Amino acid sequence: MSEETKNDQELNEEQPKVDNEETVEEVFAEEPQEEQATDELSELQAKLDESENRYLRLRADFDNFRRRINAENEAKEKYRSQALITELLPALDNFERALNIEADNDQTKTLLQGMEMVHRSLIEALKKEGVEAIDAVGQEFDPHMHQAVMQTEDEAYGSNVVVEEFQKGYKLKDRVIRPSMVKVNQ
Amino acid sequence: MSEETKNDQELNEEQPKVDNEETVEEVFAEEPQEEQATDELSELQAKLDESENRYLRLRADFDNFRRRINAENEAKEKYRSQALITELLPALDNFERALNIEADNDQTKTLLQGMEMVHRSLIEALKKEGVEAIDAVGQEFDPHMHQAVMQTEDEAYGSNVVVEEFQKGYKLKDRVIRPSMVKVNQ
Repeated sequence: MSEETKNDQELNEEQPKVDNEETVEEVFAEEPQEEQATDELSELQAKLDESENRYLRLRADFDNFRRRINAENEAKEKYRSQALITELLPALDNFERALNIEADNDQTKTLLQGMEMVHRSLIEALKKEGVEAIDAVGQEFDPHMHQAVMQTEDEAYGSNVVVEEFQKGYKLKDRVIRPSMVKVNQ
Repeated sequence: MSEETKNDQELNEEQPKVDNEETVEEVFAEEPQEEQATDELSELQAKLDESENRYLRLRADFDNFRRRINAENEAKEKYRSQALITELLPALDNFERALNIEADNDQTKTLLQGMEMVHRSLIEALKKEGVEAIDAVGQEFDPHMHQAVMQTEDEAYGSNVVVEEFQKGYKLKDRVIRPSMVKVNQ
């Protein structure tokens, strides 16, 4: 081995050793700092992503809630008086039955006229809320509107046509709240 | 100069030079990196804080919206039939006026009895929805319930007491939907 070679070897063994030590020190001093920073960064980024996702999910929930509530409220508003109307219908039936007499004296005639006006104003008030009687006699039988409680064979009417109404049916806007009770032609 | 010394010199001149260059490079390369990392960190942290705040604000908005909607819906549900009831009241007034006759024959008597039943069932249906007539005659005058359209001086009644009712008033649950029209004692 020449001195040079030996020296080279020493260089390769010692100098690099010092260099290595420095590098190692630097690696231990800097790499963790960098790693730490990178860790912190990716941790923060993950937190940010999660936070953003949480926000987006909440906004979607909020939007869905608002949409659902609006649809529900629209329906509630549309049929708001259904419970009261349903309770009023039997009284209306009896009212119409009571009006259905033939007056045999003036006082009854006057009372009947007054009561007919009262009846008309009740119907008018219900109409303003969207209540209407269902057409029955002469109409084609419609199972959504009419409830067949009797059948008949009448050549004066077409097949499947309502020939008699036993109880008036009512709709509240587009909703049948009580079907007509009818007799249908076969 | 021996080869060794020369070599050492070379080492001391060259090797440290390289080492220095490396260090300087690293210094210039790392300091901004660290600064950059710190900048990125605080930028991310600010974004995260903003995102969290945005989430919290949205959640508060959502909670408020839900609370407001619930309160509104409760009120809407409670007074849902008010519009229809308000329309029905004039018909009810006329009904009661028409019932207020003295029958002079059997047919009128029978018709009156039938109509009284109809009237009772109307009142009953309204009551189920929360409608009640306001007490007036004999009650102390209450400006929330009664509308004074006339005054009188009657020693048979106490001061500020309702002595006559011209038109019945009605409440829907806790809400006066029409005050009684009354005569009040001074």
